[in-house]
Amino acid sequence: MKRGVSLLTLVLGGARSGKSRYAESLITALPPPWIYLATAEARDAEMAERIALHRARRGADWKTVEAPHDLVAALAARGEAPLLVDCLTLWLSNLLLADADVDAEIGRLEGALARPAAAVVLVANEVGFGIVPDNALARRFRDLQGRLNQRLAAMADRVVLVVAGLPLVVKGNL
Amino acid sequence: MKRGVSLLTLVLGGARSGKSRYAESLITALPPPWIYLATAEARDAEMAERIALHRARRGADWKTVEAPHDLVAALAARGEAPLLVDCLTLWLSNLLLADADVDAEIGRLEGALARPAAAVVLVANEVGFGIVPDNALARRFRDLQGRLNQRLAAMADRVVLVVAGLPLVVKGNL
Amino acid sequence: MKRGVSLLTLVLGGARSGKSRYAESLITALPPPWIYLATAEARDAEMAERIALHRARRGADWKTVEAPHDLVAALAARGEAPLLVDCLTLWLSNLLLADADVDAEIGRLEGALARPAAAVVLVANEVGFGIVPDNALARRFRDLQGRLNQRLAAMADRVVLVVAGLPLVVKGNL
Repeated sequence: MKRGVSLLTLVLGGARSGKSRYAESLITALPPPWIYLATAEARDAEMAERIALHRARRGADWKTVEAPHDLVAALAARGEAPLLVDCLTLWLSNLLLADADVDAEIGRLEGALARPAAAVVLVANEVGFGIVPDNALARRFRDLQGRLNQRLAAMADRVVLVVAGLPLVVKGNL
Repeated sequence: MKRGVSLLTLVLGGARSGKSRYAESLITALPPPWIYLATAEARDAEMAERIALHRARRGADWKTVEAPHDLVAALAARGEAPLLVDCLTLWLSNLLLADADVDAEIGRLEGALARPAAAVVLVANEVGFGIVPDNALARRFRDLQGRLNQRLAAMADRVVLVVAGLPLVVKGNL
Repeated sequence: MKRGVSLLTLVLGGARSGKSRYAESLITALPPPWIYLATAEARDAEMAERIALHRARRGADWKTVEAPHDLVAALAARGEAPLLVDCLTLWLSNLLLADADVDAEIGRLEGALARPAAAVVLVANEVGFGIVPDNALARRFRDLQGRLNQRLAAMADRVVLVVAGLPLVVKGNL
């Protein structure tokens, strides 16, 4: 396990911040093939359009694995290729909609990430910098996302906040 | 008054960003006892649960002072123990609900903080990084919080933005 | 064209973050006269009050040009004086309300900024760090603002995120 290859990186950013593109650039700086672990489910036209746009940007060196719910199993089944998880916010949203035990799932995720055999880059939204949302579900989601980000940031080697496509390093080096 | 002991620190962060925990770590790095100036009022079950969780995390070296409204009097009455104010966003919210003269209260707060006899750490939310809220009260709150943060940041020795539990230094050194 | 004079700077920040004041300070550090390219339209009392407050803070060395819609023409007509655009978020909002071709307008803006004859400072809101907004227009606005910020950040010499009135450098040097 070489330093610089087996790092765990957490890429945080707002909506349309360029966080996915930045996260991809971290993976494609390593030799292919690369694994794209997709958590999105095309539940409506807006989502379908976003998924298509993201796919169109990626090339043939990417192997896409769909894992909207059982992200942990998909992580466990991975080999030694650099892997991108895009994104934890959709995964969390899927868990909430499926009424899953979110804390238990986060614990399983931490376990699956604890012994990385290759570089893993996780993408997640930072959603807590606005006014308190009106509805309770949005508040609960905000809380869970915040706790998830804290837990993964604590174990990550690098944490980057993407602002307008540019990385602001919060932990570790670029 | 020793440098490194009597600093005024402003800790900003989003919801569930770990800002309180980080702010506490700044205080507990100093010799006890420590004062916890709590601005929360348990107006509903959600708030009561959050207050209980925060209390449970603190130990016997903390003296808790409840000051949901007259934060300034509580600050004036303090001795020379390191002091944490958690948090200014709830205090601001309490002032707004009580229809207080917010600008005057912020001025009084600045006065009370101008001559610190011991380390003071202030916690506040950063709430302005979202879409313009629909309702006027939320917009007014956002404006007031922004101005409060600017005024306190201007007089603080250190300003830190907490992202996923990690400090991003905006002013001063860690 | 001297380095340090002809830079393109993008100043991002939340609501009431002090981003306009900080952006003005970058311009007023250069010799006057200065051009203030205002994109605000006083569509209601709240907006009119904000415009008046901003104007009151500026002095006689500023020449104000109102350009709520055709920002690009106003930029093209400028001379060699340092110029502040405050702000791109209102401009984007005006374009959306006027049902303009936003992508085409952003492209024109990039063209107008490509060969700066004097320092240009652009102010824009960072709006993507909250929970997904309920209504589709807000989501669309958030997406467009995010993309606009990414495109301008890519071509800017300096990008600064203002937090509580303080600059956090994301690209370039202060």
